[in-house]
Amino acid sequence: MTIERQVDDKYLTTFIHESEAGHAEGIIYPENEEEIVEAVKKAQAEGKKLVTIGGHTALAGGTYPQGEILLNLEKMNQILDLDKETLTLTVEAGVTLNQVRDYLAGSGYFYAPDPGEKRATVAGNAATNAGGMRAIKYGVTRDNIRSMRVVLANGEVINAGSLNNKDSSGYDLKDLFIGSEGTLGIISQLQLKLRVEPQYENSLLIGFERLEELGPVIYEILHSSVAPTALEMFEHDAITYAEELLGKEMPSKTGQAFLLVTLSGNQEAAIQKDLENLEEIAQKAGALATELLSGEVEKGVWDIRDHILSGIYKAGPMRLDDPVVPVNKITQAINKSKEIADDLGIASTFFGHAGDGNIHICLMKKELSDQEWEDRLHQYDLRLYDFLAENGGLPSGEHGIGLERVKFMPIFFSETELATMKAIKKALDPNNLLNPGRVIEVDE
Amino acid sequence: MTIERQVDDKYLTTFIHESEAGHAEGIIYPENEEEIVEAVKKAQAEGKKLVTIGGHTALAGGTYPQGEILLNLEKMNQILDLDKETLTLTVEAGVTLNQVRDYLAGSGYFYAPDPGEKRATVAGNAATNAGGMRAIKYGVTRDNIRSMRVVLANGEVINAGSLNNKDSSGYDLKDLFIGSEGTLGIISQLQLKLRVEPQYENSLLIGFERLEELGPVIYEILHSSVAPTALEMFEHDAITYAEELLGKEMPSKTGQAFLLVTLSGNQEAAIQKDLENLEEIAQKAGALATELLSGEVEKGVWDIRDHILSGIYKAGPMRLDDPVVPVNKITQAINKSKEIADDLGIASTFFGHAGDGNIHICLMKKELSDQEWEDRLHQYDLRLYDFLAENGGLPSGEHGIGLERVKFMPIFFSETELATMKAIKKALDPNNLLNPGRVIEVDE
Repeated sequence: MTIERQVDDKYLTTFIHESEAGHAEGIIYPENEEEIVEAVKKAQAEGKKLVTIGGHTALAGGTYPQGEILLNLEKMNQILDLDKETLTLTVEAGVTLNQVRDYLAGSGYFYAPDPGEKRATVAGNAATNAGGMRAIKYGVTRDNIRSMRVVLANGEVINAGSLNNKDSSGYDLKDLFIGSEGTLGIISQLQLKLRVEPQYENSLLIGFERLEELGPVIYEILHSSVAPTALEMFEHDAITYAEELLGKEMPSKTGQAFLLVTLSGNQEAAIQKDLENLEEIAQKAGALATELLSGEVEKGVWDIRDHILSGIYKAGPMRLDDPVVPVNKITQAINKSKEIADDLGIASTFFGHAGDGNIHICLMKKELSDQEWEDRLHQYDLRLYDFLAENGGLPSGEHGIGLERVKFMPIFFSETELATMKAIKKALDPNNLLNPGRVIEVDE
Repeated sequence: MTIERQVDDKYLTTFIHESEAGHAEGIIYPENEEEIVEAVKKAQAEGKKLVTIGGHTALAGGTYPQGEILLNLEKMNQILDLDKETLTLTVEAGVTLNQVRDYLAGSGYFYAPDPGEKRATVAGNAATNAGGMRAIKYGVTRDNIRSMRVVLANGEVINAGSLNNKDSSGYDLKDLFIGSEGTLGIISQLQLKLRVEPQYENSLLIGFERLEELGPVIYEILHSSVAPTALEMFEHDAITYAEELLGKEMPSKTGQAFLLVTLSGNQEAAIQKDLENLEEIAQKAGALATELLSGEVEKGVWDIRDHILSGIYKAGPMRLDDPVVPVNKITQAINKSKEIADDLGIASTFFGHAGDGNIHICLMKKELSDQEWEDRLHQYDLRLYDFLAENGGLPSGEHGIGLERVKFMPIFFSETELATMKAIKKALDPNNLLNPGRVIEVDE
């Protein structure tokens, strides 16, 4: 294990700090768990700090270095075992979603979490408890990890979780580490829950005149007998960025605001009936158009959906927000987000996981000066987060707190709640060795 | 808030210590969260210990008093709010499963967790992460609680979890408290996730000549296109105790070992097709009989299933084990459990949640002397738990560690894993005030 002093520029920037490189004392590329242990012990002995990097796709600045040593897990990229009896895939921390998908192609099994960014690693997804498109049916990353090996701040290794489907045996360490963004330990290996692939799948695209009309339809779908695999929403505006990026048009797009619903299962007739139910709900709610999608057209529409973020990102400086609200507040939250942006003169567009109450707000810099942009974003944050807190929402549904949102935590959590999190951090990482300053700030 | 010094005998015994009353310094019946806070602060100030009791249905001795003060939450039994928009039921900690079921009857909504003991409280279920019959489809208690209010050992109150469907905002305190058996805090209020009731339901009873034949069928079902709501197994022997207790015969019972599979959904035709698939799987596997159940007959069979434990319990002194193994190990685990019991001359019968790998082993004292019974149980434990640990199993799938299984934890967890749990206990309850000696032992 060597610490390289020369750190490639790409590891010094992140999604939200693209143009201003951070500073790292060095970078380590462990090739196995033992080398992570060695790195942790060395850092502990020398009083250094470590920041773990997976696929380098973090959206909340969690991996943006502030003088720490970077621990890059990209060389730990082996898929270790497929156990068909328990439907479990064992992988090293640095394995990406792309790798998992390719490995399982044709096997009849799949790993359910489906975040847009497929270059992300499964360990990174576990660290932020990433969500994705299919969370409405299959849960988030938390619900799809059976167990993990974790290197603790003291250099010892534990196993958290197991292959058992039920567990009432001691504290739930697995769920504590999931979502803690690498601040409590470093994930070295994971056992992923696989599922049997459904045989049939269809999608329905529903177009509306106005964004406000989506709320009641989402409510109807969630309370109906239909259980969608995905329930996504986006604005017409958002699509155009993806179309530009991909150089192709979305096959159907009547309306200004869309719901994209996917149904899957093993009985074609049952899916057809549910699609009819969905169409009826949509029509009753005043939809402009409903379009049944299958085969290549379905793939094309989903491809557009998948590229909304990269499309907007490519169009110029922007910031991506990731708030989540209880499902009954989604229209209200979108309206408010829009209203604040308009009010502050920030261009904005929206997409999100409607079935989960998780909205992605894209704020675009356009012609604003750096100073204006910074000032307005600050105003935006204060107003949006106050609204979210009042309505039972949270600052992040799936991207994490990282470095960027730490300062807003007191808006959402009481002093005692934050003190409880800090007590856990102190108990497991007393010297604040791991990802310091991320998620919560602790005194040293 | 008063500490009553006279403690009713029924609170001094538990399921596994029925004949030997424990000792409690007193008992408190808080009527609201403030009174829990008061009790905790008083106990903290006076160096006393507290043991929380819910429905007094604990199966692992968690509430068996060892000189502590009992904190009995039975007066906090109000259902506070049904929010149809987010499908959330807010209840006080002492509300029972029976109350929740009765309250929701006819509403079109249901709370999915379905442990056999309906007098248990929802907070008690959360404390042990109870499972039940429908966990295979809807998850365990953990998966069906949105948020909880928790009184900490320092007397401060936090909210853990939220109404949001996704959460990547700070440490997952909710899941840490769930399953910690009251050792980290006292749950005072919960928000339960409700679901829309499926419109159709049918069950299939499958009888086999031998218990060993169940394993491959369970495997086939779990890997098939059918997604059961329940997948239970029991022996013929086990049924007879329930029949005796209820004074009625099970309508159909060809065979020595049974699988009881329930399917539910909103499309009758789809369920019918899945039932056909199931029958085919059963027949291919050499089932003696498959019987389609609906209406009163279905209810009757489930009633028998629900009363297996109370039937055995009524038949004389017994002990109930709750091991869980990865689903591919279930037949092996049952065989081994039986073999050890036979070997030691202990009468035994089996039932369990086959789809979850969770077996309930009923060991019966019958004609054994007290000393023989105790000695043989000890031998049994050592042999069974070694087998479980070697096969990736755990000592408890849904009943908890309580007082009874603490000594076996080192068989299943490494020193570092136990030290990690202890560090968390120390961080949140430094004076070991709450349910001391349960789950893990800490030095004081």
